[in-house]
Amino acid sequence: MKKRNKLKIFNDPIYGFITIPSELIFDLLEHKYFQRLRRISQMGLSYLVYPGAHHTRFHHALGCMNLMQKSVNALRFKGVLISEEEEEALYIAILLHDIGHGPFSHAMEHSIVEEINHESISLMFMEAINKEFTGKLTLAIQIFKGEYHRNFLHQLISGQLDMDRLDYLKRDSFYTGVAEGNINSERLITMLTVVNDELVVEEKGVYSVEQFLLARRLMYWQVYLHKTGLVAENILIRVLKRAKELTESGMELQASPALAFFLKNKITKENFLEDELDTFSKLDDYDIISAMKEWSVCDDFVLSNLSRMIIERDLLKIKIKKKPFEKNKLAKHIKKITKDYEISEEEARYFVFSGSISNQAYHQNKQNINILYKNRKIADIVGATDQFNLKALSKPVTKHFICYPKQKD
Amino acid sequence: MKKRNKLKIFNDPIYGFITIPSELIFDLLEHKYFQRLRRISQMGLSYLVYPGAHHTRFHHALGCMNLMQKSVNALRFKGVLISEEEEEALYIAILLHDIGHGPFSHAMEHSIVEEINHESISLMFMEAINKEFTGKLTLAIQIFKGEYHRNFLHQLISGQLDMDRLDYLKRDSFYTGVAEGNINSERLITMLTVVNDELVVEEKGVYSVEQFLLARRLMYWQVYLHKTGLVAENILIRVLKRAKELTESGMELQASPALAFFLKNKITKENFLEDELDTFSKLDDYDIISAMKEWSVCDDFVLSNLSRMIIERDLLKIKIKKKPFEKNKLAKHIKKITKDYEISEEEARYFVFSGSISNQAYHQNKQNINILYKNRKIADIVGATDQFNLKALSKPVTKHFICYPKQKD
Amino acid sequence: MKKRNKLKIFNDPIYGFITIPSELIFDLLEHKYFQRLRRISQMGLSYLVYPGAHHTRFHHALGCMNLMQKSVNALRFKGVLISEEEEEALYIAILLHDIGHGPFSHAMEHSIVEEINHESISLMFMEAINKEFTGKLTLAIQIFKGEYHRNFLHQLISGQLDMDRLDYLKRDSFYTGVAEGNINSERLITMLTVVNDELVVEEKGVYSVEQFLLARRLMYWQVYLHKTGLVAENILIRVLKRAKELTESGMELQASPALAFFLKNKITKENFLEDELDTFSKLDDYDIISAMKEWSVCDDFVLSNLSRMIIERDLLKIKIKKKPFEKNKLAKHIKKITKDYEISEEEARYFVFSGSISNQAYHQNKQNINILYKNRKIADIVGATDQFNLKALSKPVTKHFICYPKQKD
Amino acid sequence: MKKRNKLKIFNDPIYGFITIPSELIFDLLEHKYFQRLRRISQMGLSYLVYPGAHHTRFHHALGCMNLMQKSVNALRFKGVLISEEEEEALYIAILLHDIGHGPFSHAMEHSIVEEINHESISLMFMEAINKEFTGKLTLAIQIFKGEYHRNFLHQLISGQLDMDRLDYLKRDSFYTGVAEGNINSERLITMLTVVNDELVVEEKGVYSVEQFLLARRLMYWQVYLHKTGLVAENILIRVLKRAKELTESGMELQASPALAFFLKNKITKENFLEDELDTFSKLDDYDIISAMKEWSVCDDFVLSNLSRMIIERDLLKIKIKKKPFEKNKLAKHIKKITKDYEISEEEARYFVFSGSISNQAYHQNKQNINILYKNRKIADIVGATDQFNLKALSKPVTKHFICYPKQKD
Repeated sequence: MKKRNKLKIFNDPIYGFITIPSELIFDLLEHKYFQRLRRISQMGLSYLVYPGAHHTRFHHALGCMNLMQKSVNALRFKGVLISEEEEEALYIAILLHDIGHGPFSHAMEHSIVEEINHESISLMFMEAINKEFTGKLTLAIQIFKGEYHRNFLHQLISGQLDMDRLDYLKRDSFYTGVAEGNINSERLITMLTVVNDELVVEEKGVYSVEQFLLARRLMYWQVYLHKTGLVAENILIRVLKRAKELTESGMELQASPALAFFLKNKITKENFLEDELDTFSKLDDYDIISAMKEWSVCDDFVLSNLSRMIIERDLLKIKIKKKPFEKNKLAKHIKKITKDYEISEEEARYFVFSGSISNQAYHQNKQNINILYKNRKIADIVGATDQFNLKALSKPVTKHFICYPKQKD
Repeated sequence: MKKRNKLKIFNDPIYGFITIPSELIFDLLEHKYFQRLRRISQMGLSYLVYPGAHHTRFHHALGCMNLMQKSVNALRFKGVLISEEEEEALYIAILLHDIGHGPFSHAMEHSIVEEINHESISLMFMEAINKEFTGKLTLAIQIFKGEYHRNFLHQLISGQLDMDRLDYLKRDSFYTGVAEGNINSERLITMLTVVNDELVVEEKGVYSVEQFLLARRLMYWQVYLHKTGLVAENILIRVLKRAKELTESGMELQASPALAFFLKNKITKENFLEDELDTFSKLDDYDIISAMKEWSVCDDFVLSNLSRMIIERDLLKIKIKKKPFEKNKLAKHIKKITKDYEISEEEARYFVFSGSISNQAYHQNKQNINILYKNRKIADIVGATDQFNLKALSKPVTKHFICYPKQKD
Repeated sequence: MKKRNKLKIFNDPIYGFITIPSELIFDLLEHKYFQRLRRISQMGLSYLVYPGAHHTRFHHALGCMNLMQKSVNALRFKGVLISEEEEEALYIAILLHDIGHGPFSHAMEHSIVEEINHESISLMFMEAINKEFTGKLTLAIQIFKGEYHRNFLHQLISGQLDMDRLDYLKRDSFYTGVAEGNINSERLITMLTVVNDELVVEEKGVYSVEQFLLARRLMYWQVYLHKTGLVAENILIRVLKRAKELTESGMELQASPALAFFLKNKITKENFLEDELDTFSKLDDYDIISAMKEWSVCDDFVLSNLSRMIIERDLLKIKIKKKPFEKNKLAKHIKKITKDYEISEEEARYFVFSGSISNQAYHQNKQNINILYKNRKIADIVGATDQFNLKALSKPVTKHFICYPKQKD
Repeated sequence: MKKRNKLKIFNDPIYGFITIPSELIFDLLEHKYFQRLRRISQMGLSYLVYPGAHHTRFHHALGCMNLMQKSVNALRFKGVLISEEEEEALYIAILLHDIGHGPFSHAMEHSIVEEINHESISLMFMEAINKEFTGKLTLAIQIFKGEYHRNFLHQLISGQLDMDRLDYLKRDSFYTGVAEGNINSERLITMLTVVNDELVVEEKGVYSVEQFLLARRLMYWQVYLHKTGLVAENILIRVLKRAKELTESGMELQASPALAFFLKNKITKENFLEDELDTFSKLDDYDIISAMKEWSVCDDFVLSNLSRMIIERDLLKIKIKKKPFEKNKLAKHIKKITKDYEISEEEARYFVFSGSISNQAYHQNKQNINILYKNRKIADIVGATDQFNLKALSKPVTKHFICYPKQKD
């Protein structure tokens, strides 16, 4: 019962239209491994803070591909040669670069899928699909892995100014309504060129790059690390940990088969094979949220309370400071709720915890942004701007937080 | 473990900011019956066509309240008296007007909750919350039911130009990216005034009203009744019907407790009481989608295939015409798949079916839009415009569709 | 003292960026005949109503070229062959299609340049520039005149869905802030294709075409024929007529040399030669507005009062009705001001006058929009839509107005 | 012949609608001194770089008033008391704060009106209008001058986060299409509050303030000090200087009476009285541009060439560096053109010149932005942000430029 949909254009609130450039791309979009991204929210639980932030990884992947089409046009206009095979490989690579994300992936990677990151799962998906498509993804995979001889193609997929960032910053700013985080992706693309096989930005684009770096920093602190989102994510981590713990201790929790598998089994790089990949492909936001809805009425005090907190958006209190919190502050809260709720200290630690978050707006050493001057010299953006403020952006900033229950009414 | 969040402003991609006008409104927003709307998509399965359309009923309700605030300001600016009690009641009424929607409500009302519509469930929710809030919602409920003596207040909640429509058309156009459906809600609000307790539009707003009616018609045909969304919804109706049928025949299907309840029990107006309401409040998109994920690997040929079609977006073929399809066309397809898949005719009818859709862009007799002329006369919009095209819009348009499986590969 | 500016990209608030596709186009942009369009407002005196409407014919011409680039891409994507020569000719033709506009051209054509329209002046400019550019514009001119054998290329320049309209409606809606007039130019372009050398719209674009026609109608009545703009334009016509009359009767009015030339000389098609064209090229908004500033303190009662009305935006009163005004209404006003200001009846007629405006939203017979159905049939849009409202749009609508001075304080 | 227009709402492409809050404001808008702002471009010659930048000081003043209305609402919502008299005075003050601007005021102040700045002319206009309006502007003038006892009201008119800046940055970014310069004026307003009679920003607004400062810096370097705009403005300064010089030496240049007055007379604070103010009120962009059109064909080599450069947008070459240019570079160019064009060295200096531009993104000492922390402490923004980049923004940045004619062809 196969049906071929001839739809070749998507409406996009941001770019207007997204055109599917080829039949192969169309077939990849239709693959169930890609369709599952429709059920994975791009920003996890951020919609608890920004009610508009329900866009999906599916939509983001389409957006990236759209920007890649614009980049290919812009670079060719400047005389950079990109063959048709390379072009299609770029589209495939950017479309699939995030296919390995599970639901709420940051929380998952800190709880039930600890030993394997989404990048390596993306690669496994690509290779599995490549088999089905008889090798048509091989060049895309080479570029994705950085093994193709033309390095700038890889930089378009993964670099300081890759299409992933140019789309997600714009898209997340758009859907959250945090207009200050909006970046001018099209202008940045217009400023790109290639020198000695490296992606560089023309000099007149310096202010746009600065604005991009600062918008990114703003998005980190104001959106991605927003304290309400932060506490929600930390609760989710503890929900999943607790569920795994209870499962391991023999308790039968309601869960979809796919989620149950990951609660029951310890996953390592070695035992994550094709079967596991297929099970993983069945996991999405619906498994996690549905499970928490059930768990919020289960018998375990910890699991039910934490789950209900997310479902009813009735979260723990959070405080954030530049310096670490004193240990006895934590101890005081633990002592209090141990008594109030007659729970063990171990259980209490699920409701009282501290942590830290940090962000470095610009990594000069790891991956830098190079500017092409009118005199044809190339130099890192940090040296290029006046006022040195970008040097400051290279320093990581760390903040500390503590979470604990509100006073009992 | 109650925590009071002091957030008083929401970011909104459309209006910029939405301000919470009072503590009571804030407390209503925090109620779990309202928070559940975060898990109910405003546009059902339309995201299968428009990947941006993941906005929720929660967000829409906030948007409506925001427009209501603008309307109150605009009307007061023109000298219309609205007391503070009436003002807050308007905000409550519009905020809760859609609280009775279940997940995919159109499909639900055509399958497992047939005898009770979302309007009456909304009212039940309001009354339940009113009890908890010791009567503070009473005036809002009166206005909602049209029992308050000032009729124009009810028209702001439910009428041809109510805040519900002014927000959902704008919001759906925005998130789908169908820019032609965008309406100028703020201008329309600016043109509203009240004469003899009736909401009317000032003469200079005639073109804006026309544009509103035409945008609405465009949204119907291009978005709400888009053929891919239509086939998806019709499959969903059949998924739910089949699941209910199988459950009634004794089969145990995977389902959340809330969904299982509605599959097992026949719900009528008489037996839908407080307990049932609370169970209903636990139903959301996650129950339905998660169930379909499980069902797509269940033993029943019909249920598993229909469920998989939605999950993998591999839908039936659909054809649309102005005239009804001939009966033997349906019969031919049924015969074919009965043979191809070795299923009964009754089963085959789940995959081959026809139906019709219709839309009337303007209901002159039911609820009309009145224009206030400069000479102080009031008349229906249809008479007010040149070129008679609005009279045409009052004629209902009907189209017919047929769905059937694609050829086997 | 020639300087070559290497700027190849323009910022545009609407499209983001506009790229100059070739050196020849760049050189045309730099030509003084084209640069003068920077000093000619696209919407004449409409900024007296819509304060944002100060965009120029220069900017509109760039916008048209940008849409033409998108059309060429869209059509080629569908397999329509367009050679590189044709492509560049299209850009030239659309860029220069309006180059013959003088300042406030509608008013000019009704007063001091009555016998020659802007289309023929555009052609004269093109031919003059073609000489300078040694024939490089020849193909563009053929397409512009409809003499090239591929008719659809001409339709892209001048037709119901030409790039001119697709840009000016969008641009005028944008700058006036009349959001309801916004059209989705990009979607319309995406729906275009070519059959039998004719531009047609794919069936799924029917609602977009309808929305386009209705947005255009809305813009006519709400913006282009807005009563304040209408009275301002009618005053301007009378300012210019009066100035010409006074000049002919021997009075020396302050005026730039170019304006003085057109006040002194009667221009006909026969005597509008290269020299006259060059003089015409020196006329722009600055000549007209500056002259009115001077004239508002000149000795002639009529000229000074009319000029001051525009400069200080202190206009005549205007009334609009569907039926013509009775003659004695005019007579009454004339009588009154003849007495109040002690002026002759002939002078009074400059301040009291009537007229009519009309608009036909769709000209089915002159230039129609054809729809390409899925069954490959082609038919006019009027037959294609339900509800027949487009048939109504083909009927011209006429309104009548009368202008007269306000009561003396 | 007075006519009262009842228009109470303006369309604005940025804010949607701008409502006129009172009859007094309406009458001020109609005043010819205010209407003249319709003929003064907000961004001078920047449209030579950004073709959309034709918005006027009239429109900007309306925009400021609109933001002031939002500020008054936001502050009152937080309990800041603002009386109705203060409210109207705020609207008047912000509406008229820039009324003293002449055409291309920066160039004017560097050439023909050197001794008197636009702020003091604004005040003169306000006082003149106050006389006509029998003292109704007195409170507005007090607030404008900073003489009213409630200081925060003055800060809303003139301060680091005043309505002037919040509108012009947004508006200039919008009309130029430089989207990175867009600021979120509404969010900033939402974050304002008043403590001890001082305007402060709530802590959660820190990132928005940073983004505002950086957007402003970007707009400076990318737009206001764009090299093409810079060379155009410097040519205009020299056009006006040359015209004054020639006039003083007895040559009769074509010019409007108002412009002629300022070319002939040396204006000082002492002799700029009511008559001069009225003459000044007649000067606008049309006088300057029209004059240059005439002058571009006058006999003086310097004046005609410089004028033509602007009219035909055929500007001098410009180079920009961080270090000053060496003197002999200038000398070399002067020598060359002295010879090429057979002109004196003094004349040559009109075509070859150097200069510098500088910008300080944040003036901590002059006027700082104070942040209100959750612990109720108040501190300057520089201390409030991590990463110290704002400290860097307090350092002024200077760049040097040199202009000279292109090689003769």
